[in-house]
Amino acid sequence: MPILVMKFGGTSVATLDRIHRASKRVAREVANGYDVIVIVSAMSGRTNELVGWVEETSPLFDAREYDAVVSSGENVTAGLMALRLQEMDVPARSWQGWQVPVKTTGVHSAARIEEIPSENIMAKFGEGMRVAVVAGFQGIADDGRITTLGRGGSDTTAVAFAAAFGAERCDIYTDVDGVYTTDPRISDKARKLDRIAFEEMLELASLGAKVLQTRSVELAMRYKVKLRVLSSFEEYDPNAGTLVCDEEDIMESKVVAGVAYQRDEAKMTLISVADRPGIASAIFTPLAEAGVNVDMIVQNISEEGRTDMTFSCPVDQVARAEKAVTDAKARGDINFHDIVADKDVAKISVVGIGMRSHTGIAAKMFDVLSKEGINIKVITTSEIKISVLIDRKYMELAVQALHDAFELEKA
Amino acid sequence: MPILVMKFGGTSVATLDRIHRASKRVAREVANGYDVIVIVSAMSGRTNELVGWVEETSPLFDAREYDAVVSSGENVTAGLMALRLQEMDVPARSWQGWQVPVKTTGVHSAARIEEIPSENIMAKFGEGMRVAVVAGFQGIADDGRITTLGRGGSDTTAVAFAAAFGAERCDIYTDVDGVYTTDPRISDKARKLDRIAFEEMLELASLGAKVLQTRSVELAMRYKVKLRVLSSFEEYDPNAGTLVCDEEDIMESKVVAGVAYQRDEAKMTLISVADRPGIASAIFTPLAEAGVNVDMIVQNISEEGRTDMTFSCPVDQVARAEKAVTDAKARGDINFHDIVADKDVAKISVVGIGMRSHTGIAAKMFDVLSKEGINIKVITTSEIKISVLIDRKYMELAVQALHDAFELEKA
Repeated sequence: MPILVMKFGGTSVATLDRIHRASKRVAREVANGYDVIVIVSAMSGRTNELVGWVEETSPLFDAREYDAVVSSGENVTAGLMALRLQEMDVPARSWQGWQVPVKTTGVHSAARIEEIPSENIMAKFGEGMRVAVVAGFQGIADDGRITTLGRGGSDTTAVAFAAAFGAERCDIYTDVDGVYTTDPRISDKARKLDRIAFEEMLELASLGAKVLQTRSVELAMRYKVKLRVLSSFEEYDPNAGTLVCDEEDIMESKVVAGVAYQRDEAKMTLISVADRPGIASAIFTPLAEAGVNVDMIVQNISEEGRTDMTFSCPVDQVARAEKAVTDAKARGDINFHDIVADKDVAKISVVGIGMRSHTGIAAKMFDVLSKEGINIKVITTSEIKISVLIDRKYMELAVQALHDAFELEKA
Repeated sequence: MPILVMKFGGTSVATLDRIHRASKRVAREVANGYDVIVIVSAMSGRTNELVGWVEETSPLFDAREYDAVVSSGENVTAGLMALRLQEMDVPARSWQGWQVPVKTTGVHSAARIEEIPSENIMAKFGEGMRVAVVAGFQGIADDGRITTLGRGGSDTTAVAFAAAFGAERCDIYTDVDGVYTTDPRISDKARKLDRIAFEEMLELASLGAKVLQTRSVELAMRYKVKLRVLSSFEEYDPNAGTLVCDEEDIMESKVVAGVAYQRDEAKMTLISVADRPGIASAIFTPLAEAGVNVDMIVQNISEEGRTDMTFSCPVDQVARAEKAVTDAKARGDINFHDIVADKDVAKISVVGIGMRSHTGIAAKMFDVLSKEGINIKVITTSEIKISVLIDRKYMELAVQALHDAFELEKA
């Protein structure tokens, strides 16, 4: 029988009643003729509670013990859903990560899946089991200890199972009904996309449209796993949600797929940096070591051997970033006249596979913003994305204006 | 280094603060020179919550899934205590049942420990680890699925580890400070025993002094594991609690160790049963199959080929017992004139190893009850115990009078 992977996030299994509803969806797919692998998260709130206990017990915790404690939440959901399915006369059983086993690297709390042997579960399917309910987010390292994949890791678990078992599709059930052209809270013209290319999804996910964990999309792209995002709170509809798929599976893709934003950004500029080979490395290595998530980087034109270096990072990392570069200056590793931090910026991005073959998208974007009187502070571009930093107060306006200009409300 | 096993029950690890306090006790024993194996229960209330979820999800649950869900509580405590010990600079790590592995039978929810290989943990002790924190109550069956040992199974886990690792002692930390001559809530003269023989503890435990799980005492007796019961809420005292040990390790044992009671008993009599070989089996097999916990059994003198058969069971099982024997009568398996159930009885037992060599204990017991005007309804005796059923309203009076008469308040 064809295999379907279904993943239910924390809000979709938050209560016994929701586990019941999720189980009904699973039972329907069994009735549709699938053998189903269900990947479950912990019941909403559980993981936070467990993490809180770990952090209170040991602020600089041993990540191996963190993993042992935090992974327990998923195990509870897996057992409960298997029981619920059995109540519906669907042959089901639960699997904890180590039972499959989901083999991972030994990097605790941020492990990567290395291998998922399919024999055990396939043997059970062969014996008449119809649903394997697998605890997401977890695995086992070579030394036999439990690992976790990092927050949102259940999405990655789901895609990895879909790849390992050659699943027809991987359905990610969550609390939104799909991927939108932009955040519906900002533009009431936001439209749900029926399909979106992996590459576009990657840009949107990492830019703030937090529907899927980035790694899960990367993995799906590499193994060509068809990924569907849909709501577990809507009525059943075989065409619901958004299909994240290969570019070639999208018949007529629009030039621009969506407008993303990141609200709480800061722009930092090191004024008059001595420009020499290796200077970028000398600046950004200490920032990385200090745990600063540097996003955009722009180096202005060099004059008389000195340059201005501008970068963006989350606004709550500004103090840490200032300390890192000031310390580097004190050590004599770098030299600059001043640091200027602008904490009131937001990032707006226009994303679309079609940009590869269409020119003028950037020009149009700049024109739209200009007509609204919005000053652009920094620009970066990639093959399928253009991002700008603007004053935070114009963020909503910019998103709405760009959404209108690229006519994203139209299918 | 000598090995000590320490077990902390649910109330002793109910909060992060209590886990902290328990960890301090462990750290002290490490400082005393022990390598320590800690067996932990789930945080108080957790197991009940998980069991509630299972029962609500699936009233006739698959015991394998029950075990997978319910065992998660102990895993959380084990990880948290390992973290807390690390914070105190005590080298510690957690072990889940399957990691040791604690090998059990495949009887889910009521598994028995078959083997605990010591290599893994001993190797870690050899590398400098000082504390292995093991999740109690759980193990792994041959097929790789998680099992649990039944309620109170963490005591059994602790004793089994003490036996497997040749531990010097097994300390059971709980919410009482030892084993008493009787329930202090009933007699204010109740005295804590410094030592008690395994056999006495077994009789007391199964009779209502619910301090230790019966199976754990049986196991300790078989492997001669010195077992100490003590409170996790008292100040540290190396001589605290009650040592449950071999008869030979008790220098001067009193004739009577304690007075136990069971409040909610019922006495049932089948009137005028046709007396023939196999009749007892014909009556008690259907009762066992119906899940009735028959305790005392008395068969009166047979007259003219008929006899009265009396037995006791918990009062909430009377309806089930009546149905079982009535059904058996309907099938023609047994024959009797009537059933009489007395739901207002309690059981009082006097327990002591010394009875083996002292005569007259039974006579004294009957005399004491007689002087208080308490009528005895049923009597059974074993080598180290005499039990009687009396009207429930006299229960406290009987316990107090017997405690006084045997001078149990004196050491």
